[in-house]
Amino acid sequence: MATVTLIEYEDASPEVQAVFDDIRAVRNTDTINNFWKALAHHPDTLKRVWESLKQVMGSGEIDSLTKEMIYIAVSIANNCDYCIHSHTASAFAKGMTDGQYQELMAIVGMAHQTNAIATGMKVPVDEQYLKGE
Amino acid sequence: MATVTLIEYEDASPEVQAVFDDIRAVRNTDTINNFWKALAHHPDTLKRVWESLKQVMGSGEIDSLTKEMIYIAVSIANNCDYCIHSHTASAFAKGMTDGQYQELMAIVGMAHQTNAIATGMKVPVDEQYLKGE
Amino acid sequence: MATVTLIEYEDASPEVQAVFDDIRAVRNTDTINNFWKALAHHPDTLKRVWESLKQVMGSGEIDSLTKEMIYIAVSIANNCDYCIHSHTASAFAKGMTDGQYQELMAIVGMAHQTNAIATGMKVPVDEQYLKGE
Amino acid sequence: MATVTLIEYEDASPEVQAVFDDIRAVRNTDTINNFWKALAHHPDTLKRVWESLKQVMGSGEIDSLTKEMIYIAVSIANNCDYCIHSHTASAFAKGMTDGQYQELMAIVGMAHQTNAIATGMKVPVDEQYLKGE
Amino acid sequence: MATVTLIEYEDASPEVQAVFDDIRAVRNTDTINNFWKALAHHPDTLKRVWESLKQVMGSGEIDSLTKEMIYIAVSIANNCDYCIHSHTASAFAKGMTDGQYQELMAIVGMAHQTNAIATGMKVPVDEQYLKGE
Amino acid sequence: MATVTLIEYEDASPEVQAVFDDIRAVRNTDTINNFWKALAHHPDTLKRVWESLKQVMGSGEIDSLTKEMIYIAVSIANNCDYCIHSHTASAFAKGMTDGQYQELMAIVGMAHQTNAIATGMKVPVDEQYLKGE
Repeated sequence: MATVTLIEYEDASPEVQAVFDDIRAVRNTDTINNFWKALAHHPDTLKRVWESLKQVMGSGEIDSLTKEMIYIAVSIANNCDYCIHSHTASAFAKGMTDGQYQELMAIVGMAHQTNAIATGMKVPVDEQYLKGE
Repeated sequence: MATVTLIEYEDASPEVQAVFDDIRAVRNTDTINNFWKALAHHPDTLKRVWESLKQVMGSGEIDSLTKEMIYIAVSIANNCDYCIHSHTASAFAKGMTDGQYQELMAIVGMAHQTNAIATGMKVPVDEQYLKGE
Repeated sequence: MATVTLIEYEDASPEVQAVFDDIRAVRNTDTINNFWKALAHHPDTLKRVWESLKQVMGSGEIDSLTKEMIYIAVSIANNCDYCIHSHTASAFAKGMTDGQYQELMAIVGMAHQTNAIATGMKVPVDEQYLKGE
Repeated sequence: MATVTLIEYEDASPEVQAVFDDIRAVRNTDTINNFWKALAHHPDTLKRVWESLKQVMGSGEIDSLTKEMIYIAVSIANNCDYCIHSHTASAFAKGMTDGQYQELMAIVGMAHQTNAIATGMKVPVDEQYLKGE
Repeated sequence: MATVTLIEYEDASPEVQAVFDDIRAVRNTDTINNFWKALAHHPDTLKRVWESLKQVMGSGEIDSLTKEMIYIAVSIANNCDYCIHSHTASAFAKGMTDGQYQELMAIVGMAHQTNAIATGMKVPVDEQYLKGE
Repeated sequence: MATVTLIEYEDASPEVQAVFDDIRAVRNTDTINNFWKALAHHPDTLKRVWESLKQVMGSGEIDSLTKEMIYIAVSIANNCDYCIHSHTASAFAKGMTDGQYQELMAIVGMAHQTNAIATGMKVPVDEQYLKGE
């Protein structure tokens, strides 16, 4: 087996079912997406990652939609196919407009361009950016 | 020479000075940061990148601070030292709070974790994410 | 043609067949996996990469299964679909347990998380880590 | 401030001090390395990341030194300067030999080479690797 | 919708059609490849990226085929499936020989190997490379 | 020790000295750059990597300067500080003009931009690029 199998709710241990129940409650949906079904082979990891994600992505000083857009940006840079799909879907579900999506793509692309040029030229960091270090 | 030299305003061609003047006007500051001084060796690239950046980062459906936070997220994923410094400074200048900065770091870290796990396990994309393709 | 074609044993030059024979002998299998069939278009590269891999992955101070798990970790970070599949299969063939696989995924994910945070915050390297430089 | 400041034990809140105490106890050392001092600005993240790391890197089916070597491999692929330094130091502290270190570098380099070639040529995944999907 | 839809010429706005017409004229072909059809949702981005690409990839001090090979090298490092396919096709269309393609794959693979080793060992940059900084 | 030490010619074993001598002869210089001094801790790796590099970067269907520019492009994408410095120096030594260097930076940056957008939007590969697979 070189690829993960998915564990459905019915076949899961009580420990896994408890996490699945919490995912459903927090997200207000019956659907458990495949990522969690894949993690269910290792209940400790499932629980740890879900608890972490819940803490990080929950309400805070950054609003929930912005958090999803940041998640998409990272997922593109890491070229994670699953993550791009799932977090783009989440962002649209949370109200991202088509215009915001287009701007997000433009920013992510632009950042990659200037990142590469700054790295290639070894541009020295400006002193004013280092103040307070 | 394996590293870029910086071209100061005084030593720049009129074409470069015109871009520098526009940077100062748009950003309402006298400072030209090193990235642009490095690009000044090639006026076509300087002008093209600045015009693109101005268009992408200007006001739109995503607010200006959120755009900077997305830029930081990409720069971390690309490990661009210069870009992390300059866009973190920009984000603080645009009003990012310490709490937002801490949440940003937490989101970026979390996204890298789940990206790696989803990629490593080759988790299949859920059908509901593919609808409409 | 934008994607590689595969060269089968029967259609290969004697030089390529000699490498294929060595792969079969060293790995104690009749199967030549696609990576080598793709490299067979350029016998010099085929021979160089195979000889290098044989030297690096052969018995040494790190045991063979650990080497495969390190290979998987790199392949996930590079998001190489082919490499994740082939080296995960190899690791299971060499005795990796399901528990080890789950732990490997957890370590790789965790490392990506702390990597991103350390990079984003530009955490200075501790002096004790630099001793002896 | 574009770079993180470090919070020392003496200046930390009781919540942070409790995590620092646990780090010292688990690692059997008085030293708190800079990564944790940087995270101390956000006690929730500090506690979450430390608890996660403790769970993931603790004793399991993969031995502790192997876990460090896997961590190094990921850190190199991500080019995380801090992480390469700290986990290489940890691995030597846990008994990594010079020979193992050299082999680790060779494996990591080799994996990057074949990753790039497999990705560049879009080598199709062998059917036997997909069995059981 | 988690994946982009494509806008065909017939359904495009006059602004988009003008860019499509220019692509056809510059490239001397009737075909508009999918990348541009995807960007057509956001005419500003479409126009900006096309104008930039035209400027960068046009005739200059580096010949056109070499530019495509450099583009392929970056696309492999970024693991961009679409970009590897499209620029490999472009390079063959511009006269890349099979031998050049094979050498390109070998160079890209080799560069990834030495990159990883230099990064992992934190090899200090030679003073002669820093002269003139 | 978390960072590599360098082995000078005088302190090297005869096996290492033989490789150093070959590097000097092939490159027609007395200087051994730090990368090789770092690899000298493991003569097998030193010899293998040098022999591989010599084969890959030697004269072929792609000219020597183009090979260096491709190497730079990969090194920027991987953000390998050492490699960017050393191969940029090599390229200038082999006759790269300032104009070519500027164009190289522009291409590399542009490629990163379109890579990120194509990846983020999951643009489907055009059928004409897949013909012949």
